[in-house]
Parts: sequence; structure tokens; C-alpha cells
Amino acid sequence: MRHPVISLTTDFGTSDHYAGTMKAVILGIAPAARIVDVSHEVPPYAIHDGAYVIAQAARFFPPKSIHVVVVDPGVGSARRPILAETGGQFFVAPDNGVLSMIFEALPPSSEKVRHITADRYFLQPLSQTFHGRDIFAPVAAHIAAGVPPARFGKRISDHLRLDFFRPRRTGKHVWTGLVLHIDRFGNLITNFRLDEFRNISTRPFELNAGLEKVTKLVPNFTEAQPGELTAIPGSSGFLEIVINQDSAARRLGCGSGAPVELVLY
Amino acid sequence: MRHPVISLTTDFGTSDHYAGTMKAVILGIAPAARIVDVSHEVPPYAIHDGAYVIAQAARFFPPKSIHVVVVDPGVGSARRPILAETGGQFFVAPDNGVLSMIFEALPPSSEKVRHITADRYFLQPLSQTFHGRDIFAPVAAHIAAGVPPARFGKRISDHLRLDFFRPRRTGKHVWTGLVLHIDRFGNLITNFRLDEFRNISTRPFELNAGLEKVTKLVPNFTEAQPGELTAIPGSSGFLEIVINQDSAARRLGCGSGAPVELVLY
Amino acid sequence: MRHPVISLTTDFGTSDHYAGTMKAVILGIAPAARIVDVSHEVPPYAIHDGAYVIAQAARFFPPKSIHVVVVDPGVGSARRPILAETGGQFFVAPDNGVLSMIFEALPPSSEKVRHITADRYFLQPLSQTFHGRDIFAPVAAHIAAGVPPARFGKRISDHLRLDFFRPRRTGKHVWTGLVLHIDRFGNLITNFRLDEFRNISTRPFELNAGLEKVTKLVPNFTEAQPGELTAIPGSSGFLEIVINQDSAARRLGCGSGAPVELVLY
Repeated sequence: MRHPVISLTTDFGTSDHYAGTMKAVILGIAPAARIVDVSHEVPPYAIHDGAYVIAQAARFFPPKSIHVVVVDPGVGSARRPILAETGGQFFVAPDNGVLSMIFEALPPSSEKVRHITADRYFLQPLSQTFHGRDIFAPVAAHIAAGVPPARFGKRISDHLRLDFFRPRRTGKHVWTGLVLHIDRFGNLITNFRLDEFRNISTRPFELNAGLEKVTKLVPNFTEAQPGELTAIPGSSGFLEIVINQDSAARRLGCGSGAPVELVLY
Repeated sequence: MRHPVISLTTDFGTSDHYAGTMKAVILGIAPAARIVDVSHEVPPYAIHDGAYVIAQAARFFPPKSIHVVVVDPGVGSARRPILAETGGQFFVAPDNGVLSMIFEALPPSSEKVRHITADRYFLQPLSQTFHGRDIFAPVAAHIAAGVPPARFGKRISDHLRLDFFRPRRTGKHVWTGLVLHIDRFGNLITNFRLDEFRNISTRPFELNAGLEKVTKLVPNFTEAQPGELTAIPGSSGFLEIVINQDSAARRLGCGSGAPVELVLY
Repeated sequence: MRHPVISLTTDFGTSDHYAGTMKAVILGIAPAARIVDVSHEVPPYAIHDGAYVIAQAARFFPPKSIHVVVVDPGVGSARRPILAETGGQFFVAPDNGVLSMIFEALPPSSEKVRHITADRYFLQPLSQTFHGRDIFAPVAAHIAAGVPPARFGKRISDHLRLDFFRPRRTGKHVWTGLVLHIDRFGNLITNFRLDEFRNISTRPFELNAGLEKVTKLVPNFTEAQPGELTAIPGSSGFLEIVINQDSAARRLGCGSGAPVELVLY
């Protein structure tokens, strides 16, 4: 790889040396790697949020990009480190469901997932609290440097696949979903996929979240009235609940994971 | 360009995938680009703040750098995306005034501004809410990859030029200006240019902001008494109101945009 | 140097143009440099915190990396800018103790420290408030571009070496230390080095911080009970006080610099 790209998605924040140290380790092994921060501000331990963030970003990366995803409340325990190949890209992460929305995008048959066990690629001594530095970063860097995936460990098929991001049908016209993520602007990204709920643009609907009911869909922010709570087809591919130039999350008092009900007539 | 430099200035924050996704798009088109974050912490929708931040940074970038500036409350509306060449550098932004302080630095005759219309350089399908990803990042990357500016659209001369950053003379000895930006340390950057108000270092003056009056100028922070509110010739090229090791913004209760009056005897 | 690596550690935050402008300056001088952010979120003016952060990161960087460390409350005063070579890496910083934990790692005989005086490598005009941009970034870039260290100034031996990070023995079984750093998760990193206090894993101990007493050591977070305050051998090489998936700092009401007493029987 001429310009191998390694992305980082973590809950490490940027006030510590953690993300910088991972980059140091990577550049020591793969000096030509291009490192891209997707986000280090995944809320601490928030596997669902991390799953959303990496799935949103990964689909825009060049082929063969290597994504390091470390939201890892179980670090040091028996949870496995895994290396997944899917969609022409690589993902290095703990086996705790944080890659679930990545796996979702493609049929199971196209995935290759390995349990990373080849500790010759780990930093030694191996800490029990910072596998981002000691396992995930060096493994990603070795892939960038050309080590074949099979070297890192045996294939597995029992890796964790969560389905928190799938709405459940709870009535003839009713689906119960949730808030996948609150973004910087206070927009609520729901788990209602635009391509699964196309009717929303042509039929009356209700989106119930917090104590509010949303019944209007606008194509973009500027078509909403000031202060008006509306739905919008998000750049995420999901239905979002927004207020033009204001925070829908603050208005609704909703956080990531809050329930959202869709009634579609 | 051997090492094309692309800078990013946005109000996207870093808790979402937005900035990382723009980088993914760029590296897919221009794998050799060097991407520099100027800031993603421009306050949401704060065009004036964004205008200040990019103008401060751009003057230190190498020739031919390409700056992507996305503070874009009108995304999806009729506001135009523009590509400006000025001062030997390129700027890709919405036509909402966010480049005003860039245009200010050079005479209008030296600018070339184009309305970006060549949608073959956009990501498809084009979202109505994330033009950073779908228009601005790919256009910047195509410039880095060598596409001539003329390919992106026709020249225009009616792009928006705001002049919020110019103090107005409101009396024989009095000018009314404003706070351009509050920095991380709570320093207030005013819009009084050091090179226009040179007399301040040799003549008595008053700077009135919030409920306080500042009458002392010090060359650097360490020459102020602890807790003392002073003016300082900022690294920004503007007069700043500061407290050594404390927040002048908190003391004054001033935010970005607050009025500042200068009386110069 | 094929891929010179320059790291940045500052208290500049990321809401301003400061860090981005330093990168602009670097790329103008050393276009091939790889720039890594260690952190820009060192608390304002917090020299001790900055000392910890760079010392943690530096040991994982490749040989010949160049580290720029700007936590510089005395900017513009008589404090000297210095260039230190130690452990095969370069450090550019104000002479205010922020490199103390770097110097600690190696015997004084191995260090070469210079007072940076060669102002032909500085940006002109030199501001009195932003030496990160005008002195430290360009000096680092010139080193990356191949300028020999001796060109920047004469060797000195009276640079500031603080020892705040060394616990003091205050009784037969008692040491008084402090909190070096609070990390993003609210973990308290103490200044008790694991390799100096090995007995802690085999003998009864007490760690007193805030109003709490910690008497249990666990190898990793998941071996603690929910809500339980424990000690842990940190990835930092220091003893840390933590709560699994919660903030020990909030529970204890301790900040960076707070005293910690260790009683080891």
C-alpha cells in the first residue's frame, strides 16, 4: 500500500496522551501510514454510539483502509480482540459489538473475522488497561505494513453482533426505534433508515420522542420555521429529528438510546 | 503538487464522524493530500467566528494550500458554494460571508471567485444537509489532485463580503468595535487592528467592554499584575483584552460579538 | 529523515486557530513532516500536567521524533526557549520545567540541552504572546528539515528540572505523593511508580486520597465490583485510583496536584 490509511475511533477524548500515543505506535511500525481521527469523543464506554460513528465514516474511506475502533469497557478481561475484513476494508476492535453496524451493511457470507492472538505483534509488556496502544494500534500498523490478515489469528464466526439499531414493529402502523446518536448540533439521529421507510415522504406520519410529536418532514434545515421541530432525511441515511439552528436534543430532553416511536399511516 | 495541503475549518465539533468523513472523502480522491485541522470548534452557525479563525490561520499556510471552510447554516438552500483564489491560496466555502476577512486582506482586483456548479465533482447522491462531505471536501480534493479551478464553475463578483470586522468611528476620539473572538484562555480579541491604531502604545486610551474600562497596554502577559485587566498587542494583529493567567471573558461577561468602545486621546 | 515526525503538546485547546497555525508553519518549512497531536487540552498554564502528558507519549514515538511542548505561562518574558536531545528524540519547549519528566527518564549525562537563540529560524515579526507559532514550531520544522541542533544555540546545563513528580517518604511505612493527572475517564494517575512500589501487589496497603481510603488492587477494570474504588497498575507505569466505568475523580473530589498518601506495610 502506497498510502495506507488508518482511522481511529475511540472514547479516549483528547485531553490525555492516549490517542497521540496510539499514533506514535503506528508511525513506529508503518511510517508511511496516513492516520485519520474519526472521533475520540465517543461517550465513555458507549459501544452503541461508537458503532454508529464508525459505520457512518467507514463507508466513505478508500478501499483497504484500516479502522481501529476502541470503545472497550472490558479491556483486560476475556473479551477477544478481533480483526474483521468486510466491504474491502479492515476493522480492528474488541469483540463487544462495536462493529455491529459495520457487519450489518454486508451479508455474513462476505465477512472474514479473526480472533487476534498473535502476540508477537503486540507491544510488550502488554498492559491490562490500554489495549488501544498495546494491541489494536500495532496490529493495524502491521496490516498497513503488509502483514497478511491470516497471521493475526484464526477465523471465528461467533463474534458478537448486536441488533440494537433495528426498529421493532410494534403495531400495524407502529414501529419502536431509538436515538442512535445525538450530534454536535443537538440533532437526534434515529434508527429509522430512509431506504426502509420511504413512505414517510409521501404519507402522514408521527414521530414521538420525549414529550413531543413530530409530523412534518422538510428536505433541509432552512425549510423549517425558526424553532420548529421537524424530521429531516439525514446525511446519515437515517431519519433525524432537528430544529433549524437549535438543539432538538435539549428541547426533547432525549439522550442517545432514548426510545422513538414512528406511526406511519 | 507534491504535498498538497488541505485545511479544514468547521463548526462540526469532533464528537461526530463529520470531520473524519470529510478526510475520508479527501483521501479517496487525493491520496497524497496533507490534511490540517484548523478548528472544528467554531461555535455552531457562527459565521463571524469562522471568518476570524480561517483568516488568522491562512496567512501562515504554504502557497497553494486549499482551505475548506464549512460554517454553513444555509446548507441545502439556494446559497452558493464558492471557490476563491486569493493570496496564492484556494478557499472552498459557502457564499455566506465566512471568507470576508480573507477577502479583506487583499484588494478585490486580486481575487478570483467562482460559483461551484460542476456537480460531476460532487459526491452522489448529494445530501441536503452535509455539503462538507458531498461538495466542499471533494472539490478541495480535486483541486489538490490537479483539476484547474475553471472547471468548477463560472466566475462571479457578487459574492457576499461582510464588514462586521471594521470598527466604526463614532466620535472625534471614539471608535465602536466588537469582540471578534474569545479564545481558549478567555482572551477577548477585538477588531481594532494594531497597524491602524498604532497610537495606542504612545497615547492615553480607554477600552470599554462589559462594565469595565481598560487603560493599560502591556507588551506581554507577564508584565501585567495578577488579576489585572489589560490590553495587549495580540499575535492576531488585533488589540486583545486579557488577564494574565485568567479569563477576561469571564470577568467581563462578554461573548463573541459584544461591543467594545475605544477612546483614543 | 524520510518521514520526520513532529508531535505537538499544548494548552491551546482546539477552538482557536492556534494549533492549526503551528501546523501551517511547520508544513511551510518541512513539507514532508508527519504531525501528530499528542494533546492540545493540557489545562491552561498547567506545566505539571503537560510534563506528564508528553512523558507518557514520547516513550512510544519513533527515534528522532521531534516534540513541541508549549505550556508557556511566561511567554514573552525572560524564560528561555530550549532544545533538548535525550533518549534519541528532540524536544522544543520553554525552559519552565515542562520537560522535567522527560529529563527524569534518563541520566543527566545523556542530555544535551541548548538555549535557542538563533532568531534567523524564528518567524518575523516575533510576537510576544505566541511563541508556539513564531519560535517553537519553526525550530522543530527546521530540525525536521535537517538543520543540526548546534545551529540553534549554545549548550546549557542550568535548565529547570522540577521534581514535583517524586513522592517523599514521610514515615517508616508512609509516602506522600500527588495526583499527576486526571484522565478523561476520571481515573487518578498518582506519582507512585509501579517499578518503585512493587510490593503493593503482595502486601497490604492503604492509599488515602480525598476522604477515601483505597486498600484493594485489581489487575484491570473488570475485576472491580460496580462502584468500587480500587487501585490499578496503570498503563502509565504509575499506580492509578479508579472506579470501573465511573469517575474516581468525581467521587473523591480530587484534582490534578491533590495529595495522595501511600501506607505500605
